[in-house]
Amino acid sequence: MEKDEVLIKKAASGKLGLHKIQDFVDTDKAVEIRRKAIERLTKTKLEHLAKHSISLGAVTNRNIDNPIGAIQVPVGIAGPLRINGEYAKGEFYIPLATTEGALVASFNRGATAISESGGCTVRIVKEGMSRAPVFKLRNIQDSVKFRDWVNRHFYKFQQIMGEESKFLKLNEIQPFIIGKRVFLRFVCDPSDAMGMNMITIGVNKVIDFIEKEYPSAKAISVTGNLCTDKKTSAMNFILGRGKTVSAEVKIPEKIVKEKLKTTSKNIAEVCYSKNYIGSARAATLGGFNAHVANGVAAIFIACGQDPAQIMNSAMAITTAEAEGDGAYFSILMPSLEVGTVGGGTSIATQREALEILGCYGAGTPPGTNAKKFAEIVCANALAGEISLLSALAAGHLARAHAYLGRGKALK
Amino acid sequence: MEKDEVLIKKAASGKLGLHKIQDFVDTDKAVEIRRKAIERLTKTKLEHLAKHSISLGAVTNRNIDNPIGAIQVPVGIAGPLRINGEYAKGEFYIPLATTEGALVASFNRGATAISESGGCTVRIVKEGMSRAPVFKLRNIQDSVKFRDWVNRHFYKFQQIMGEESKFLKLNEIQPFIIGKRVFLRFVCDPSDAMGMNMITIGVNKVIDFIEKEYPSAKAISVTGNLCTDKKTSAMNFILGRGKTVSAEVKIPEKIVKEKLKTTSKNIAEVCYSKNYIGSARAATLGGFNAHVANGVAAIFIACGQDPAQIMNSAMAITTAEAEGDGAYFSILMPSLEVGTVGGGTSIATQREALEILGCYGAGTPPGTNAKKFAEIVCANALAGEISLLSALAAGHLARAHAYLGRGKALK
Amino acid sequence: MEKDEVLIKKAASGKLGLHKIQDFVDTDKAVEIRRKAIERLTKTKLEHLAKHSISLGAVTNRNIDNPIGAIQVPVGIAGPLRINGEYAKGEFYIPLATTEGALVASFNRGATAISESGGCTVRIVKEGMSRAPVFKLRNIQDSVKFRDWVNRHFYKFQQIMGEESKFLKLNEIQPFIIGKRVFLRFVCDPSDAMGMNMITIGVNKVIDFIEKEYPSAKAISVTGNLCTDKKTSAMNFILGRGKTVSAEVKIPEKIVKEKLKTTSKNIAEVCYSKNYIGSARAATLGGFNAHVANGVAAIFIACGQDPAQIMNSAMAITTAEAEGDGAYFSILMPSLEVGTVGGGTSIATQREALEILGCYGAGTPPGTNAKKFAEIVCANALAGEISLLSALAAGHLARAHAYLGRGKALK
Amino acid sequence: MEKDEVLIKKAASGKLGLHKIQDFVDTDKAVEIRRKAIERLTKTKLEHLAKHSISLGAVTNRNIDNPIGAIQVPVGIAGPLRINGEYAKGEFYIPLATTEGALVASFNRGATAISESGGCTVRIVKEGMSRAPVFKLRNIQDSVKFRDWVNRHFYKFQQIMGEESKFLKLNEIQPFIIGKRVFLRFVCDPSDAMGMNMITIGVNKVIDFIEKEYPSAKAISVTGNLCTDKKTSAMNFILGRGKTVSAEVKIPEKIVKEKLKTTSKNIAEVCYSKNYIGSARAATLGGFNAHVANGVAAIFIACGQDPAQIMNSAMAITTAEAEGDGAYFSILMPSLEVGTVGGGTSIATQREALEILGCYGAGTPPGTNAKKFAEIVCANALAGEISLLSALAAGHLARAHAYLGRGKALK
Repeated sequence: MEKDEVLIKKAASGKLGLHKIQDFVDTDKAVEIRRKAIERLTKTKLEHLAKHSISLGAVTNRNIDNPIGAIQVPVGIAGPLRINGEYAKGEFYIPLATTEGALVASFNRGATAISESGGCTVRIVKEGMSRAPVFKLRNIQDSVKFRDWVNRHFYKFQQIMGEESKFLKLNEIQPFIIGKRVFLRFVCDPSDAMGMNMITIGVNKVIDFIEKEYPSAKAISVTGNLCTDKKTSAMNFILGRGKTVSAEVKIPEKIVKEKLKTTSKNIAEVCYSKNYIGSARAATLGGFNAHVANGVAAIFIACGQDPAQIMNSAMAITTAEAEGDGAYFSILMPSLEVGTVGGGTSIATQREALEILGCYGAGTPPGTNAKKFAEIVCANALAGEISLLSALAAGHLARAHAYLGRGKALK
Repeated sequence: MEKDEVLIKKAASGKLGLHKIQDFVDTDKAVEIRRKAIERLTKTKLEHLAKHSISLGAVTNRNIDNPIGAIQVPVGIAGPLRINGEYAKGEFYIPLATTEGALVASFNRGATAISESGGCTVRIVKEGMSRAPVFKLRNIQDSVKFRDWVNRHFYKFQQIMGEESKFLKLNEIQPFIIGKRVFLRFVCDPSDAMGMNMITIGVNKVIDFIEKEYPSAKAISVTGNLCTDKKTSAMNFILGRGKTVSAEVKIPEKIVKEKLKTTSKNIAEVCYSKNYIGSARAATLGGFNAHVANGVAAIFIACGQDPAQIMNSAMAITTAEAEGDGAYFSILMPSLEVGTVGGGTSIATQREALEILGCYGAGTPPGTNAKKFAEIVCANALAGEISLLSALAAGHLARAHAYLGRGKALK
Repeated sequence: MEKDEVLIKKAASGKLGLHKIQDFVDTDKAVEIRRKAIERLTKTKLEHLAKHSISLGAVTNRNIDNPIGAIQVPVGIAGPLRINGEYAKGEFYIPLATTEGALVASFNRGATAISESGGCTVRIVKEGMSRAPVFKLRNIQDSVKFRDWVNRHFYKFQQIMGEESKFLKLNEIQPFIIGKRVFLRFVCDPSDAMGMNMITIGVNKVIDFIEKEYPSAKAISVTGNLCTDKKTSAMNFILGRGKTVSAEVKIPEKIVKEKLKTTSKNIAEVCYSKNYIGSARAATLGGFNAHVANGVAAIFIACGQDPAQIMNSAMAITTAEAEGDGAYFSILMPSLEVGTVGGGTSIATQREALEILGCYGAGTPPGTNAKKFAEIVCANALAGEISLLSALAAGHLARAHAYLGRGKALK
Repeated sequence: MEKDEVLIKKAASGKLGLHKIQDFVDTDKAVEIRRKAIERLTKTKLEHLAKHSISLGAVTNRNIDNPIGAIQVPVGIAGPLRINGEYAKGEFYIPLATTEGALVASFNRGATAISESGGCTVRIVKEGMSRAPVFKLRNIQDSVKFRDWVNRHFYKFQQIMGEESKFLKLNEIQPFIIGKRVFLRFVCDPSDAMGMNMITIGVNKVIDFIEKEYPSAKAISVTGNLCTDKKTSAMNFILGRGKTVSAEVKIPEKIVKEKLKTTSKNIAEVCYSKNYIGSARAATLGGFNAHVANGVAAIFIACGQDPAQIMNSAMAITTAEAEGDGAYFSILMPSLEVGTVGGGTSIATQREALEILGCYGAGTPPGTNAKKFAEIVCANALAGEISLLSALAAGHLARAHAYLGRGKALK
């Protein structure tokens, strides 16, 4: 107790760095001391941040540095959402963590429309996680020579990366030359993990090999932004990163009218004017959709994914067309970066969210849990698109916000 | 108890919709019943989701629909970060919610380098939150006529929107014509709120007025994606949305060497090869930075901001140049969408995070808290850039991940 | 004669630079000598390059340096094209310079469909030519101060630029700050000229004034690529450059069927799949059209415009919708950079092409000729869109190329 | 004579369509009659358009429809430019067709600086011309099945396309799925031709095969804008189209100072502020350069290339760095679409321009002439970059325009 007080005082006076506290006490105790120091430093009372059931001591450094507590993000359920995927089959209850009123209700409405129509079909059409270091060579001839040398050493690099983890497989190297700079985009299958960390470690080992065996290739940086990690990029939009997933559903006009309160033709008009003409005019990159980022952010936070990766993961093209007796909707998400092991997936609450979806941990066979989860994320995004486009077509988006977002009940 | 069990059974068997539960019990009880139904439906045990200190009943509908509990996201502290802003002045302890090991440590290192150099300067260079409905007119002549009519009615629209809230001020209408479609981008000052909801409500009232007074203008959708909300867009990157903020710092070479373990010249080379040549080659939109999305996502989740809005908020241009005896760093974030009232800001833990920064609630005068917060977000992003670019230059990004991300201590 | 031979020999042996020849003979003679030297140097026979009717001597330096002759580009006529513009009214015969078989025929077919439908309506919805120098200030506070100082000196700058030419009017300065760099996008009305040259000269005078009156603002470059000249940019797509023009036409189903050999529904489907879904997937910037660049390039070359400016001028959004009993088409060209005085407009053949359109030289009142020409370019682009989308819908694009492009007659 | 007058009258009164004239007289005579009819219709005198040495009759339909004459574009010579390419080796005199004063002088200056530095090195790092039809399948499962079927039939498709021309080789099919739509990007080697026509014809034959053998795949359009032809696109920027070419040169400081009138450091600063920060801020797509479009447009028009293809061909990344005792420059042009047979290459003047470069017609072995020409285009673009960046750094861009562009001699 007395020792704690001494540490708090030292930390609160700046004499002890916040990250040094854990050198003197165990990591759980350090959380408390650090929080108390912050309370004094900022003259605040951090009661609720203190009330976490997850052990922060256990994940200190692994998942968090200098922890002082936990943020609680409300999680609601949308669904059941019927999915006819290759990996996700059946009805799913989707955990969505958000503080935006009406969001879960909106995805829920879309899920109901999909489920009543027999479910949506989802397919992963491409896969591969990437990391792209940048090298400097002597000159452009050397760049070309190096590129060819790299191609000849593909299996060697595959072996080096495979030694880092049996769950890591190098599938392709995409080279990009600009004068004497060469970017090598390593594309891997990281099994059920999102994989950035293990790929980065693997790529670093390959870099060590390269610098030894091809001395004129000097690594400038283990990442040269062609990966592209956490910056919306056409590179990922076109070549894919993580999973490239597409989903579709045909909703009979009867359901469009009764459930979605509008018509297929009106939905198609909103989609055309907003998702296409509007997004074209706004010069979006991969933003040909209504609000995919809402669904991706909410399920990412619930399920321990990296929320900074929504920059690429939420790029999407949504189509909505009147077709025969109903509406045809489809969605493409070219760069969905997800995992069911590693990252934040094993934090207790995030783990439970993944368990609700039957996706926690490594799949059998390996890789299938991450694929199942990717299909669910895509299906959920489709549900959100259907709901919002319909709401806009029906003209009640604003009303929904007015009622739900301000604490009034949905009629 | 017995009644609860009946409700759980009904919900778990699908006879009672998850969102109907609260029709029979109070909203707090409904959370429990809903969670238990989900446990049965998905054969899971949701112990930790249940352990929230925040009252979900109180925020049902306002912030969450169909709640079953809360996700706990670890929050760590970076800083102190010295900021010389117009609104944020002094040393700040930055709460960052994340599950990515090494992230807080990285921002912390950047914060230290900045603070030891006397702090970074931050300025808001432009402001305005937008919502852009799309209308269909009779023909292109009508579009032009309508655009001119709208311009003449600016003050009327300003009055209508002002009546919705005394904190809402319409500043500008940016019209975009494509044939007989007209998009009107309403740009507002929503004071300390991020403002989407109140602007949407205000715009809907203007639409009502328009449809009455200019009958040939038919609103297709209250949003036509020129807003642009939650889709990375050049529209926002160029015209701005929320706050357009820029920060800079000059770090003496001594600190670069001792603290950042590299040289200004090496940092400049990494920045040039990665942030410029690499991002150009990857065809990013607004992704001329190292990892701004990491900082934005972490502070957004901690402080109750809308995480889907990082799509635009995390667009950034970072410069790093060797200059005189040190390194000059600057950052521009053109579309930072933040608020300190409304949204998730008053959830207990998020509120505490904002209080740590001295930014919770309405500012005095109104609007100053959101501005202060925007400056902090930008300064924190700058800290992250400095740290990662330096780490890459020093070649220890991978090692940092290997040690920190896997639970080992930073030496 | 003898003197000529001496000069040819000297130039062909490298002893006399190609641009020095005109120091010894008149500029027309220099063309001949230079061409002969090139014939010897490259062992070629340049018979046809020699056969120009335009006087190259007269335009040496003004329009061409080191001239050796002229390229002949075949020019064909599309039309008559009926245009209901604000400036272009009536039927126009469009001169298109191209070497691509079927191109003129395609635009001609679209023109006929438009004319038979009563003509297309065209409107200029925004105007302003831009040049954007970049400055370096002491720091970010200075950047903000400088921006405010610039705003206060707007009328002074307007006066300085107006002194350069009575046809040049500064309309707006759009400032962009990134740390200590400030880009000032000067937006002007250059009357009937495209205007780059006179604006650049005017901006340089403003820079002289700035560097004298605001010494800490150091001009790095008279252009900082925010202009943006000759690089496809969202800046121009969103803010406009030159003229922002939109056109539309409603084509009755009868004409769609008889003239365009397809149906409105099929055209709409091709437009949706190609111009929207396809262009979105390809991550185009402003490329939501079928082949606008073809029409722009052909009329630009015919009429003495700057062909490098098609980079922005050919950005376009085309819509095609089945509507009532027919097809509704519209087009938007946000950044059409044209002029009817200056540049290549007074070269004899280019002048004649402009005269065919009734657009040569300064308009009465000033500016109206350039506006008329802009409307024609836009209408012509619309004609091309209608024709190609229809051809694709009818499935005979390839056949058209097979027959026309290889010298066979169109049936 | 009398017959001619009858035809002119008929055409000038609208009784005879302009494209019908050649049904009654030979194609050369038709040019004259058509031009005279246009003179009457538009009350103009088209003296210079009439003065062409090339036979328009011979290229009617093949290269031009409804011809009335030829536009004369002045052509100047830049160089000699020393190129150390794989195909282009030695000194080249570059024919540039333009009406912009100072343009040739600028490229000439860059060429001189390169040549005096020993020449620039150029390499083609990727090749492949593309055409991408779009298909509609029954549903997404069918899309995936179809994609796999296509992959299995690659050699069959290669055979079908090979039968169209022995100079056409299918190298790769890049599939893109969005719901039930499938885009197939056929990537081919068209030898010395730019290749669009022959590839389109070949792809149409493959479509015939597909529709017969895989009946549920319905071709919507032979092009779905993923090609991408004549619309600036990230698809081409990233995957390449035509040739992906890079060039570099190291210019000693002595030459920078004497020839370019500035310093390496100043050039690097202009490049950083303009080509990187500026272009990033302007949200260009592939526009990280100074004025590559100028060089590409001028050499394209001179050499009978398709000027509408500068939309992608002029995308470029330019680097300029102070390095050791001098400046290092490099350029990347990812989507350079060129050919030395077909298109406008055999028009007499264009052919002569290609002959100046030693590039006319089919190469030995096939394909090498187009490659040589691509290397020259890239080297010339590099020359232009060096010259303009230097001029901006030296602060005399405006002066150059003032003197040269207005007919005064360069001092």
